[in-house]
Amino acid sequence: MVQSYEQISAADFFYRNRDIAGFTNPTRAIFSSLRELVENSLDAADHSGIPSDVYIRLSYDHERAAREAHEAKSVDENLFDNDVNDSEPKIYRLRVADNGSGVPARHIPSAFGQVLFGSKYKLKQARGTFGLGGTMALLYGQITTHKPAFVVSSTGGARIYVYKLVVDIQRNRPIIMDRKILLNKEGWRGTIVEFSLEGDYAKAMSRILEYLKQTALVNPYANITFIDPRGRLYKFDRVTKSMPSPPKETKPHPYGVDVETIQRLIRATPYRNMIDFMRNHFHRVGEKTAHNFLESAGIGKTRNPKRLSQEGIVRLVKMMKRFRAFLPPDASCLSPIGEELLKAGILKELKPEFVAICSRQPSTYSGHPFIVEAAIAYGGEIQRKNDIILYRFANRIPLLYDEASDVSWRIIKRINWRRYKVAAGMPIAILVHICSTKVPYKTVGKEFIADRPEVKREITNSIREAARNLQHFLTKREHVEKERRRLSTFSKYLPKIARFSTELAGKEKPPNIKKLLSSVRKYEEN
Amino acid sequence: MVQSYEQISAADFFYRNRDIAGFTNPTRAIFSSLRELVENSLDAADHSGIPSDVYIRLSYDHERAAREAHEAKSVDENLFDNDVNDSEPKIYRLRVADNGSGVPARHIPSAFGQVLFGSKYKLKQARGTFGLGGTMALLYGQITTHKPAFVVSSTGGARIYVYKLVVDIQRNRPIIMDRKILLNKEGWRGTIVEFSLEGDYAKAMSRILEYLKQTALVNPYANITFIDPRGRLYKFDRVTKSMPSPPKETKPHPYGVDVETIQRLIRATPYRNMIDFMRNHFHRVGEKTAHNFLESAGIGKTRNPKRLSQEGIVRLVKMMKRFRAFLPPDASCLSPIGEELLKAGILKELKPEFVAICSRQPSTYSGHPFIVEAAIAYGGEIQRKNDIILYRFANRIPLLYDEASDVSWRIIKRINWRRYKVAAGMPIAILVHICSTKVPYKTVGKEFIADRPEVKREITNSIREAARNLQHFLTKREHVEKERRRLSTFSKYLPKIARFSTELAGKEKPPNIKKLLSSVRKYEEN
Repeated sequence: MVQSYEQISAADFFYRNRDIAGFTNPTRAIFSSLRELVENSLDAADHSGIPSDVYIRLSYDHERAAREAHEAKSVDENLFDNDVNDSEPKIYRLRVADNGSGVPARHIPSAFGQVLFGSKYKLKQARGTFGLGGTMALLYGQITTHKPAFVVSSTGGARIYVYKLVVDIQRNRPIIMDRKILLNKEGWRGTIVEFSLEGDYAKAMSRILEYLKQTALVNPYANITFIDPRGRLYKFDRVTKSMPSPPKETKPHPYGVDVETIQRLIRATPYRNMIDFMRNHFHRVGEKTAHNFLESAGIGKTRNPKRLSQEGIVRLVKMMKRFRAFLPPDASCLSPIGEELLKAGILKELKPEFVAICSRQPSTYSGHPFIVEAAIAYGGEIQRKNDIILYRFANRIPLLYDEASDVSWRIIKRINWRRYKVAAGMPIAILVHICSTKVPYKTVGKEFIADRPEVKREITNSIREAARNLQHFLTKREHVEKERRRLSTFSKYLPKIARFSTELAGKEKPPNIKKLLSSVRKYEEN
Repeated sequence: MVQSYEQISAADFFYRNRDIAGFTNPTRAIFSSLRELVENSLDAADHSGIPSDVYIRLSYDHERAAREAHEAKSVDENLFDNDVNDSEPKIYRLRVADNGSGVPARHIPSAFGQVLFGSKYKLKQARGTFGLGGTMALLYGQITTHKPAFVVSSTGGARIYVYKLVVDIQRNRPIIMDRKILLNKEGWRGTIVEFSLEGDYAKAMSRILEYLKQTALVNPYANITFIDPRGRLYKFDRVTKSMPSPPKETKPHPYGVDVETIQRLIRATPYRNMIDFMRNHFHRVGEKTAHNFLESAGIGKTRNPKRLSQEGIVRLVKMMKRFRAFLPPDASCLSPIGEELLKAGILKELKPEFVAICSRQPSTYSGHPFIVEAAIAYGGEIQRKNDIILYRFANRIPLLYDEASDVSWRIIKRINWRRYKVAAGMPIAILVHICSTKVPYKTVGKEFIADRPEVKREITNSIREAARNLQHFLTKREHVEKERRRLSTFSKYLPKIARFSTELAGKEKPPNIKKLLSSVRKYEEN
């Protein structure tokens, strides 16, 4: 009659609900594993300031394949599904290596063998968001193959650490099966992760390649190398060594706080008066602003924050949210792609005839700063499709799923494109990138962006601005096209007219039209 | 240079990412809090087998409102946003009381003050899925109001327990601020939860009322009472006391296992040979099936499961997934609404002219059994809209968000409705309910159902079947309508024809047409 109760660990929660983190089935899981590790690698490289080299190898686990073939022969085919078949999920080995900042030895087991442990819990723009991805990939590999994972890393010091790990899912703890220390003679710095997992490359392939192509587009300073299970090599070479300035950690903004945040700051603060507390813990709150705020809110400047009552804390939060004179968050902590790099990436990967970039001023939602960058590319090698092709990015990672649920898609559907001289079937691609200290993802699997009003407004305005540029280009082209046709007709008939007029006028020699024709042709060539 | 690492608790994770759990903003949060508690109450009543009485009261926190009004006067309106304004988020008090099975005293603090603790981790159909919802509601209330929550519960024994709780978010632990024990003189059984939270009832109201109306529709045995902040009473009375048979816990099915599940079973099993292990731990695996399987897979029947090697475990999982002769999951553990109750609920809440119900045979995905029930309602008090109105349910809870992302919506968009004689603008509502031991939600916020092939197929077929019934009804009505018009014309002219024929034939007395006319009228009346 009475229900039974139990507790589960965070790892157990994400194990039972791995759909939510993007590990729904072998096809999706092989994609998610690859993307989570690649994103960790790119984040680590940003942090080091050195242009990223990421090397990805996905191979069949031949040992396993041979054993399965042998087994397939030895069981009754009437009773068992035979899976020695190209389209069945197979066992793969995934290896991702980078030249990033590396993971300190003491943190390696937890960083990869425990969920909710990592470096992504600061208020800082990063690709990895939830502190889950890397461990989820290893967890998925483990539950489908029962094989341990290998992590090799060095922060550039004298040693390289090699760990053989397994996740204790019920306790959310890493189990170290083996550990080796190697001499780092060449001063290598970076991380290598290798593990086995069940996947379906045949079905995942196009998504994986699209992901790598789009990643290369928005990270044109990165070298990305991918060797697939069929032994094919895909290279996305860097077109520049200049990297955008790296993202910086920032303090919370007064408009984004709640009671819990304030309590934690109070518990941790070394400051014993409210003026210093306000000045030092919040983004863009200086002496003068702190003074203004505390005075207007009727909170004593010399009051000890640790002595605030429960009521006092609630009131402080409320006053902070409503005070109009706090400076809006600045976006100096953010790291947008930038117009130059964006253009370089688009030209490299999409090869269009025309590109318009629009980079908006920073804006904020819920106290988090964000920047939207949009681009419209037209013609060239862009394919004609029924719909506009949309590329979505957040914190420099491509979003490839659930397009129809994304705020950018909805915005594009609502725009009246004929206003901008865009007709159905034109070869057009739109690119939207948002960077923020907190990207408003709807899901843990980072599939699409939620419908926040401030974000929606910025994306709408940026697309419209780029669309106006496109409109000018198309109008001018239309104009040039009209002129060309007009003059083409002109140049077709001019010789005839010259001849007939000569006859009519009874002259012998037709007028010299070469000069006229040549000016027409000059026009055509332009 | 080197990144800093930290660990966060599961409560902290969901605090930082509460969007994901449906607590995005005050409007959404007040809805999510209410729904999570109501669903817990309905689950508790199912478990007890007694028709549910759920009482919900949402009121303004007047004490707080008075204080805010006072404060609003005392601060400089130039510097602070004035929020004594109807549309601003306010502080509310939410109270949900039920007559369900109650929570044992020793579990109350953890059930409400800790995430990932609860009764929802069994393999059983339940509304609550993630073991998060109740605690998330209290957590949200706490971070917006800094007030503790109250939980009162009794399992029907001699005592009633009253707890005053706060969630220690960083440690994911409840903090018991106070505890009282009362004598349970009337033998009451149930649970009452009461807490304060920031919300926006004006914006959330229509969604909340829609939620309660739809909940009443699929739980027609429940009494639901709601008093809103404006003092208005909404009553959804039960139309029946008969409840569907309660959901039952079930064992995992061989097709749904992975290495982790098997390892946990092996660790916990009291059985020392594979035959007993297979027979006792898996759904619908009896002596004969276990024998067949082990023999065909080449696994010794007397082998001790605890002695299986790593390799052996992996092989066992693979063989179990591929063995064709396991019986498919039966759905006896599931508790669909049932045709009778579904019809009663639809007639009560939608008052249509016509209802067609289609209840499919059970099916499975990934080893989880599920049943789809669909209904189409037409005419009566159903409104005419541009689109078909869609009601979505899973495990007897309404899904009110992200309709366009839901698999049912996509299916409806693809169906060629003219085949079924459905024209645009007809007053039609479609209802889809799926129950399962594991509903394939896409998100923790339980907004919509993912696109699993087996689920998609069942929903498609059930809608089409109900649509065929509707088609018959519409065709017959069309036919009747035609006949009626024909006979109406007939009865208009018959008297004249009778008179003219009489004159033409030179007769005095017209024939008796009364009998003919009366048979026409009889037709019209039918």
